[in-house]
Amino acid sequence: MLVRGRPARPQPGDELSVPAQGDLDVPYLWLNGRGTHARDVSDVADFRITTHAPAPDWMRDGIVYQVFPDRFARSAAAADRDLPGWALPADWDTPVIPEGPGVGTQLYGGDLAGVEEHLDHLVDLGVGTLYLTPFFPGRSNHRYDASTFAHVDPLLGGDEALASLTRAAHARGLRVMGDITTNHTGAGHEWFVAALADPQAPERDLYYWTDGGYVSWLEHDSLPKLDWASPQVAEKMLHGADAPVRRYLEAPFDLDGWRVDVANMTGRHAAQDDTHEVAREVRRAITDVRADGALVGEHFHDASGDLAGDGWHANMNYSAFTRPIWTWLAPEGSQVPYLGLPVTMPRRSGPDVVATMREFDAVVPWAVASRQWNMLGSHDTARLRTVVGGPEMVEVAAAVLMTYPGTPVVFAGDELGLEGVNGEHSRVPMPWGRLELQDAATHDTYRSLVRLRRESRALREGGMRWVHVDDDALVYLRETADERVLVVAARGPWSGAVVTGLAVDGFPERLFGGVPLQVEPDGVRVAGDGPAVGVWRLPAQTG
Amino acid sequence: MLVRGRPARPQPGDELSVPAQGDLDVPYLWLNGRGTHARDVSDVADFRITTHAPAPDWMRDGIVYQVFPDRFARSAAAADRDLPGWALPADWDTPVIPEGPGVGTQLYGGDLAGVEEHLDHLVDLGVGTLYLTPFFPGRSNHRYDASTFAHVDPLLGGDEALASLTRAAHARGLRVMGDITTNHTGAGHEWFVAALADPQAPERDLYYWTDGGYVSWLEHDSLPKLDWASPQVAEKMLHGADAPVRRYLEAPFDLDGWRVDVANMTGRHAAQDDTHEVAREVRRAITDVRADGALVGEHFHDASGDLAGDGWHANMNYSAFTRPIWTWLAPEGSQVPYLGLPVTMPRRSGPDVVATMREFDAVVPWAVASRQWNMLGSHDTARLRTVVGGPEMVEVAAAVLMTYPGTPVVFAGDELGLEGVNGEHSRVPMPWGRLELQDAATHDTYRSLVRLRRESRALREGGMRWVHVDDDALVYLRETADERVLVVAARGPWSGAVVTGLAVDGFPERLFGGVPLQVEPDGVRVAGDGPAVGVWRLPAQTG
Repeated sequence: MLVRGRPARPQPGDELSVPAQGDLDVPYLWLNGRGTHARDVSDVADFRITTHAPAPDWMRDGIVYQVFPDRFARSAAAADRDLPGWALPADWDTPVIPEGPGVGTQLYGGDLAGVEEHLDHLVDLGVGTLYLTPFFPGRSNHRYDASTFAHVDPLLGGDEALASLTRAAHARGLRVMGDITTNHTGAGHEWFVAALADPQAPERDLYYWTDGGYVSWLEHDSLPKLDWASPQVAEKMLHGADAPVRRYLEAPFDLDGWRVDVANMTGRHAAQDDTHEVAREVRRAITDVRADGALVGEHFHDASGDLAGDGWHANMNYSAFTRPIWTWLAPEGSQVPYLGLPVTMPRRSGPDVVATMREFDAVVPWAVASRQWNMLGSHDTARLRTVVGGPEMVEVAAAVLMTYPGTPVVFAGDELGLEGVNGEHSRVPMPWGRLELQDAATHDTYRSLVRLRRESRALREGGMRWVHVDDDALVYLRETADERVLVVAARGPWSGAVVTGLAVDGFPERLFGGVPLQVEPDGVRVAGDGPAVGVWRLPAQTG
Repeated sequence: MLVRGRPARPQPGDELSVPAQGDLDVPYLWLNGRGTHARDVSDVADFRITTHAPAPDWMRDGIVYQVFPDRFARSAAAADRDLPGWALPADWDTPVIPEGPGVGTQLYGGDLAGVEEHLDHLVDLGVGTLYLTPFFPGRSNHRYDASTFAHVDPLLGGDEALASLTRAAHARGLRVMGDITTNHTGAGHEWFVAALADPQAPERDLYYWTDGGYVSWLEHDSLPKLDWASPQVAEKMLHGADAPVRRYLEAPFDLDGWRVDVANMTGRHAAQDDTHEVAREVRRAITDVRADGALVGEHFHDASGDLAGDGWHANMNYSAFTRPIWTWLAPEGSQVPYLGLPVTMPRRSGPDVVATMREFDAVVPWAVASRQWNMLGSHDTARLRTVVGGPEMVEVAAAVLMTYPGTPVVFAGDELGLEGVNGEHSRVPMPWGRLELQDAATHDTYRSLVRLRRESRALREGGMRWVHVDDDALVYLRETADERVLVVAARGPWSGAVVTGLAVDGFPERLFGGVPLQVEPDGVRVAGDGPAVGVWRLPAQTG
C-alpha cells in the first residue's frame, strides 16, 4: 500500500485530489544483468548468483595459448616415426587443405617435444596456460577420434613426451590443459571395436545401438557416441583407476585441467538430457584429484543452462565474445563465412554488439562470466586476421580481448598474423624461422597487451562498466577498489565523447595505444581517433 | 562447415582470396518471441510452445466483468440482515475509506441478489463472463479471509443466492467465475480455529507452525498460510467431496471456473516451492468436474514459470498489459502511486512500453498469451480514469484493451468513469440511478468497443503484428485467414505514418474511432491525430 497523506475521500465524478506522495515522485530505473532500463522488465536478465567455487584464479589470471599439436612444431624425432596408413604426409610448408578429401588426414607431424622446444615462445609472449587439443591416438590429424585413452599418441612422442612437456611447462610457471571427448570416441577405439565385434561384450553398454547400427556424432560413422545412461561410462571416463579424466591429472602427466569437446551434446540424445549432471560429475572427478583443476566446456550457443556455476567452470565464449567482436570489426561485405550460420560475416554497430554481449553475459553468474574463455578464433574458426582484414583491426580486437572480463585465449599463430578462411584452413603450421611469414608488429602488439593485462589487477579481476558505446567505439571501465582502467577501442573515426561521472583528480597514465584523453571538470574527453586503441589508468578516485 | 568453392590454399601472409559464398552473402535477422533482431540473441526469448489445452474459448471470447460483491448492488433483503460485530456499516453513498482503520471492515451490504438484479447491465454492456471476488464468509468486506469454504456468506444471501445468480446468468448466456484463496484461510476459519485450539487436532497439519506462532500471509495474523506439503490440504481444498474448488463447480452452483488469489505464493515457503505443482493439481481438480472450466492465477510479476500451459490457463496480466498501458497513458508528473513500487506512475514512450509488453509476452506460449486476463485496473489498483486523467485517454486505453490479444477484463464501474487512487479507494459503490455520477459517454464507448470485439473474429482470435510504434502512437494488426483489422491508438498528436507491405486492394471499413486512413500504392497512410483511436477492417488480402 503506497498511498500516504490524508484519507479524505472525494466523491465519484469529483475532481480527485490524490494524497501527496512526497519522495515517491522520483524517476526510477530497473537494474539487471543487462544494465539499466527506463521501463519494466521481466526476470530473464535478473542477476544470477552462484555460491559454487569459480574457476581457479590461475586460469583467469594467466592467458591461455591454444596449440594444435600436429601444426605447432616438429622435433627432430618426428622424422623417424612410421606414419599410419591413413596419413597423408605433408612437409611443414605444404599448403593446408581447407576442405574435402585430405582435410582430416593431412599430417604435418608436429609433436609434443616440438611444443616443449618452443616454450620460450610462450614465455616471451607472456601467456600463463598452454592448452593442447587432443593428444590421444586416432585416425586423424585433429585426434578428436581417440582410438584409446590409455596412452598418448606415439606420433606425438607418447606418454614420456607429455610428462616431459608438462614438467618443463610447470618449471617455467606455465599451466597445461588437455582436451577430451566425453561425447564420443573414435570408431577405432578399443572399447568400440570390442563392442562391435561381440554384442555380448561388456563394452556394448558404453554406446547407443540402433537397428543394425549405432549412434554417432552428427552422423559421422567415425565418432560413435557414448551413452552416459550407462554407469560404466562414468566409471571408465571419470572414476576408475585408468579413467583418463583423472589419470592425466596425476603424475607423471600432471595436467592442470581439461577442455571438453562438444560438451553441450555429452549425455544428450533424443529425450535423454544428462548434460548438466555429466558436467557436474566431470568437475567432481577433476577437483577430487586436483582441487585447483579447471574444467572448460565447448558450447557454441546459449550455454547458460550449463553455466550455473556447479558444472563447467567456464565455456568457450563464442556467443558473448568471439562472434560479437568479429561482427563489430569485420568489414562491410565480408565474404568470410559466419561461424555456424549459413551466411557471410555481418557487420554490426557498437550498440548491437554490446547488446548481444550483455544479453549472453546476463544469463550466467559473474563468477562464471569473469572467467569465460574469450577467443578471437580457434582451430574451429577462420583466423582473426582473415575475419577483420588487417593488422590495425587485429590490434583493436586484441586490445579488447586483453582488457575484457574473462580468460583471454590466443590461438597459436594469431600473434604472428596468420590467416585462414575456416577452421581447417586456420590450422596453419607455425612459420618458425620464416620471418617473412610473421608479422612482427602484430607479435609486438600481442606481447605488449599480454604484459598490460599481467600488470593490471583491474584488467584481470576488476568489475566491468560500459561508459560509452558508439557505432564505431566501445569505451569501458575495469575497476578494483584501488585501480581504474579506462579502455577505448575504435574501429574507425568517430565523434569522440565526454565520459562524465568519473571524478578524475590528477593525470591519467597511458598504458597502451594512442587515443588521446583529456581531463575535464566532470570527467574525461576521449578523442575520436580510429581505428585506434587507448588504455589509461585513471588516478585513484577521490571523495 | 560453410565454405564452398575451390580448395586452393593461399600462403600465410599472402592476400587471401576467400572462396565465393554464393547466396550466403545475404543479410539475416533472428526472429524470436520479441520480434526480429539485427544481432545475435540468447535463448531467453525463444518461442515457447505448449501442447497442453489452452483456456476454454468462452473465456477468451467473452469479456470478463469483475464484481466486488460488497460494492456492486444491494437487494432489498440486505436491509434485514444482522451485521457482524466487526462491520462498520456504510450507506451506499458514504465515501470509501482508502486507508487506515475501517479500510477492511467498512460494509456497504452489497449482495448476490443485488448482482442478479443488475445482470441487465452486463448484458447491455455485452460482456460474457461475470467474475465475483470472494463470496465466502469472513471478517472483512473483501472476504479474502474465509472463515469457511462450506457455504456462501449469509450476508451475501447464502448458498441459495449464489445458485440463483449462476442460474440467471447462465440463462442469459453469461459464464460465472469465483475467487478462491489457496494460499491461506482466514484466522477465523473453522480449520484454523480447531488447529489453534488443539495441537493434536488433525487440522494442525494444514498450516505452518513456528515457535509459539504460525506463518501468515505477509505477516497478517488474520491470514494463516496453508501448507501444501500436507496432502490433507489438497484433499480438503481440491479433491474431497466437500472440497470447495470442485464443489462450487457442481450443481446447484455451477461455477465455470476460478480465479486464484495470491496464486504465486501458494505452496511456496522458505525452501519449499510447490507452486507450479499446486497449479497443475488445481487445474486437474477443475477440469475433472468441468472439462471447459477455467483457472486464472494472480501473479503481479514475471509469471512465466507458472504459465507453461499445464497449470493456470492464464494470469492476471498486470506485467504485460496493465502496467505498460498505464505508463503509456499516464500524464507527466502523475501523483498516482505505481502499483507495487514505491514510486509514482512514470510516463513511458511507445517503444519502451511495447518492448516491455513483448518481453513479458515472449516468455509464455502464445496459447497462454492470447488468453491472459488483460485489465486496466482491478479491486487492487487505482481506477483507470484516475491513472490516465480523463475520458479521452480512457477511450484510448479501452480501445487497446478490446483489440489486443487476450481476455479483456472490465472492473465494474470503469465503464461509468468511476475513480479511485488505490485499490481500496477504487472499490466504489456502483452509482445506480445517480446519472450525475456516471459518465454516459464513457459508458457508450465501452458498449461500442465490446460490440466491436464480439463482432470481429480477428480481434478475438487473430494473430498480432506490431506495424508501427511511435512515442505517441501504437499501430498493430490483428489477423485471421480471412480478416485483417488495423488498430491505431494515439495518446497525443504525432507525425502519422505510412504502413507498407499491407497489400490493400479496395476500401478499408471503419469499425471504430476517427483516425483517418488513406490507401496508398504500397500500404496505408495513418493520420497523426491524437489523442485518438482508429480501428479499420482492411479488405481481404489479394495475391
